[in-house]
Amino acid sequence: MSQPRSDAPAPRRGRPGYDREQVLAVAVKVFNEQGYDATSVADLSATLGLTKSALYHHFDSKSAILELALNDALDALEAVVDDATARHPLASDRLRSIIRGAVRVLTEKLPSVTLLLRVRGNGDVETAALVRRRAFDQRVTAIVSEAQAEGLIRDDVDAAVATRLIFGMINSVVEWYRPGGPVDPDELGEDILRVSLDGLQSR
Amino acid sequence: MSQPRSDAPAPRRGRPGYDREQVLAVAVKVFNEQGYDATSVADLSATLGLTKSALYHHFDSKSAILELALNDALDALEAVVDDATARHPLASDRLRSIIRGAVRVLTEKLPSVTLLLRVRGNGDVETAALVRRRAFDQRVTAIVSEAQAEGLIRDDVDAAVATRLIFGMINSVVEWYRPGGPVDPDELGEDILRVSLDGLQSR
Repeated sequence: MSQPRSDAPAPRRGRPGYDREQVLAVAVKVFNEQGYDATSVADLSATLGLTKSALYHHFDSKSAILELALNDALDALEAVVDDATARHPLASDRLRSIIRGAVRVLTEKLPSVTLLLRVRGNGDVETAALVRRRAFDQRVTAIVSEAQAEGLIRDDVDAAVATRLIFGMINSVVEWYRPGGPVDPDELGEDILRVSLDGLQSR
Repeated sequence: MSQPRSDAPAPRRGRPGYDREQVLAVAVKVFNEQGYDATSVADLSATLGLTKSALYHHFDSKSAILELALNDALDALEAVVDDATARHPLASDRLRSIIRGAVRVLTEKLPSVTLLLRVRGNGDVETAALVRRRAFDQRVTAIVSEAQAEGLIRDDVDAAVATRLIFGMINSVVEWYRPGGPVDPDELGEDILRVSLDGLQSR
């Protein structure tokens, strides 16, 4: 699916004929700006300049929109781990590929990943997303453990803590990265690889 | 001041005689749980089992409580940079001391740092906190630049990006660290130093 952009222009009122993707992109932008719980279907339809019934033509409910956006982010992140697992026999190579891939997903799908990272588990949709996030973390932790057993990743940092720190660094990018801004997304992926694997110290 | 703890027991209703510190600790806990904007003075007084006027005996307003909590976190973080600057002539030593100190502040003052990291700039108190956060980031970025000029920190990662990634890793700790849990706070500081400066790769 195409990427909902946080800088998607707010559509003008009275301009009909959105497709589902556009409605989703605007809804995710509003959720990120004012919070999912604080956003009503009336807010969404007002922002889109659509009647509520026109909005319900695209989506059954507010939570259906949330579910689609969260699944979009989670599908992309899980695909990164699947792809790394299929390609690289060495766990340390898989880890490198996962770090690079996760940064790419984050910069390409910034609005839906931002929404995912703010999920706290209110309601079934959020709870299901947290379960998938936890399973994702466990898969990556297992890969870090395997890379430690290979002797290619240091084993004086606990694998679960190391995974949390790597993703702490990656996920923090949603706080300041802006598409089209001065930081190139590919460069950022390489920077995060450099810092997390090689460290900031000169050698 | 003493540390407001996120696991501070909810006081029983009808039990009077809180001191200012205890009121602050409970208020910060409620702000973190349900959001500052969504919390009313009535919510705070109900949680504390105090009348509104008893609450106003301690604090002039809800925003005065927010301001005190944010300043507590910011004062402690700024003191870490002041202390590092006073002690270490080498910028790379200052950076090491700042990373260790910031992790210590975060684990010791978890509730007020959590509140600080969620500030988005609504209102004067939040805006003032963001200005101080930005000044803090700039001081640390200048120290990273200086350490690059010394040749002790790699210069193929932009100093501002490196600073953001280090603090991305440090700040992400609020998402999962719990006082008294399995992760020792001093150990965590050493882990973050290892990952950020030496990297996860075995040598």
